[in-house]
Amino acid sequence: MQNFRLHTPTQIIFGEGQVDALKDLLPHGTRILITIGGGSVKQNGVLDQVMTALKDHEVDLFEGIEPNPKYETLMQAVEQVRQQHYDLLLSVGGGSVLDGTKFIAAAAHYDPSEDPWRFVEAGGLGIKQAMPIGCVLTLPATGSESNANSVISRLSTGQKLGFASAKVIPQFAILDPTHTYTLPTRQVANGVVDAFVHTIEQYLTYPVNARLQDRFAEGILQTLVEEGPRALAEPHNYEVRANIMWSATMALNGLIGAGVPQDWATHMLGHELTAVYGLDHAQTLAVVLPSLLQVQRTQKHAKLLQYAERVWGLDCSDPEHAIERAIEKTRAFFESMGTPTTLAGYDISNPDLDLLVKRLETHNLTQLGEHQDIDLAKSRLIYQMAS
Amino acid sequence: MQNFRLHTPTQIIFGEGQVDALKDLLPHGTRILITIGGGSVKQNGVLDQVMTALKDHEVDLFEGIEPNPKYETLMQAVEQVRQQHYDLLLSVGGGSVLDGTKFIAAAAHYDPSEDPWRFVEAGGLGIKQAMPIGCVLTLPATGSESNANSVISRLSTGQKLGFASAKVIPQFAILDPTHTYTLPTRQVANGVVDAFVHTIEQYLTYPVNARLQDRFAEGILQTLVEEGPRALAEPHNYEVRANIMWSATMALNGLIGAGVPQDWATHMLGHELTAVYGLDHAQTLAVVLPSLLQVQRTQKHAKLLQYAERVWGLDCSDPEHAIERAIEKTRAFFESMGTPTTLAGYDISNPDLDLLVKRLETHNLTQLGEHQDIDLAKSRLIYQMAS
Repeated sequence: MQNFRLHTPTQIIFGEGQVDALKDLLPHGTRILITIGGGSVKQNGVLDQVMTALKDHEVDLFEGIEPNPKYETLMQAVEQVRQQHYDLLLSVGGGSVLDGTKFIAAAAHYDPSEDPWRFVEAGGLGIKQAMPIGCVLTLPATGSESNANSVISRLSTGQKLGFASAKVIPQFAILDPTHTYTLPTRQVANGVVDAFVHTIEQYLTYPVNARLQDRFAEGILQTLVEEGPRALAEPHNYEVRANIMWSATMALNGLIGAGVPQDWATHMLGHELTAVYGLDHAQTLAVVLPSLLQVQRTQKHAKLLQYAERVWGLDCSDPEHAIERAIEKTRAFFESMGTPTTLAGYDISNPDLDLLVKRLETHNLTQLGEHQDIDLAKSRLIYQMAS
Repeated sequence: MQNFRLHTPTQIIFGEGQVDALKDLLPHGTRILITIGGGSVKQNGVLDQVMTALKDHEVDLFEGIEPNPKYETLMQAVEQVRQQHYDLLLSVGGGSVLDGTKFIAAAAHYDPSEDPWRFVEAGGLGIKQAMPIGCVLTLPATGSESNANSVISRLSTGQKLGFASAKVIPQFAILDPTHTYTLPTRQVANGVVDAFVHTIEQYLTYPVNARLQDRFAEGILQTLVEEGPRALAEPHNYEVRANIMWSATMALNGLIGAGVPQDWATHMLGHELTAVYGLDHAQTLAVVLPSLLQVQRTQKHAKLLQYAERVWGLDCSDPEHAIERAIEKTRAFFESMGTPTTLAGYDISNPDLDLLVKRLETHNLTQLGEHQDIDLAKSRLIYQMAS
């Protein structure tokens, strides 16, 4: 096991009807700015639940944080926050609304003579303080509800950058599985695939004898494999939604990544597919991961065997065959979620490998993976095998 | 899955050499009272490491917190704290030192005109504020390093009571597996058994389809089964000690108990064995648990089968046989840790069943377990079968 630090300070309030807890969580007199996205939380009644719980509180609303939240939009909220002096930001929605809210929280306390984009470009460095954040999460996927991460886009420059700061970890997160009943199928599938690949990135590397972290990761993967397809078949099955929601949080709150090597090459290669072809984030992961596992199967050999045996219950007496089947099963799982695993599956017939590799080079992503041995040639091969 | 709240705010700093982190964790000028037990941390060099890391800080020392920490001892520290106005209490030692430090932290901010024993008797109610606590943990067992719990004894009244308050959850915990190398064999064994039974109390009840919590619990149990005996055979095996230390923390920080029924009858019955016969806490658990599982095997049938299959890898085609074997294997595991699983194993040949049951009655422990169906008659049977 490697040395590590782990801090998961977000109070989790989980279950049906837990939005009610807001009225006791937040002292009277707390001035709250609620942040939402495009309005789905208005249509499905979640915002009404929040407003009812906070009917004796001072509440304002900021609407319109987009998927892939935009700096330009968020700066309007920053302006409002600076004028109104709220005590807390309450994000009601999915990971994008929450990521945007993290930016607002940090920008509100940033030196007003500086452009807050500076701390985004610095990856979060320079954030000395931030407003307290709470959230009511409606889309289990990114783990943003209990971690320090945020991804923000800027229209004027075409940039999409991540930043991280312990100051923007939400103080509390309300997770009500019934809030996910009305999600479109594609978003449910994306959330499951996203959580699955988050787990893989922290698990499928090389062994460091971190037995508990491995088993926790395997537990998340098995749960997603069992419950993912059921979530599509039985959208109002509470237990299924609860298991998925909790798995998604646990997949990226730091727990399973503590003390172990991490990969994240699938994410890096996926980002370029989103940028060039507009695929959903989770779709890019489903496309890249199976190819990446093939290309890296020597480096990942020991962990691939463990994955084959423990997650997929495969007979490992013929190791190479078991690994082959584990990769096939991974692919079949994504496909069973309605998520194609090749670029052809998204009608991209001749992917521009030169462009994709050139973009990686431009972004200085020339040494990826837990061994930093995925160079541009390997990345090209992974894209090619994913065509 | 049941609704739940989960709050694990302790920052974990894990690994060899991490005591050094103290110097950056604590701002200069922080006035620190270090609390220790009987001196083992002086002999094994841990206190020296702490003092070296804090050589530029203002540090005082309070010595002599006993196993089963005593109110009378702790009140001396409370007096010192009230006079000296420290900013932080730093517990260096095992769970007892830390439990005692939690009492000091809460008592220091308690109304000086009231006896702090009041909040202990109230189970923690009435604690409005407490001093910040950090810890350097040297004995993995109780999970006290990242939870709200403490158990305190009072000599003058013969009481031993637990209290809990979110205010006394440590802000940080430094876990260095090398600090456990010099523990006596019995304490290593006790810690492993304790962590194992903590996990069982939150796992082996009845199914609520909380798949992730089940798998996390199973992961802890499997890890302890694999690594426990190795810790005795290879006391300086870092990886083994690291896996045990991390398992013990995860066993009782709230994570695996979130959203599931809990039992704790083994603990309640065990406490009386400690009181009457002076057995170590973990020894009482090893004695009670196998009998309790026999007596409750109908109520726990589904989970016992799952336990047999997933933790012990048993063929479950004959369910009753599989359950029988799982209980046998549990017993054999405790025995392999050098921990006898019958009272006879501690030279207690004719246990006073009347007295034990009478004590349960006096303590109002007449409806125990996840179904509250362990009445005094069942408790008597469990004690009898454990003889």
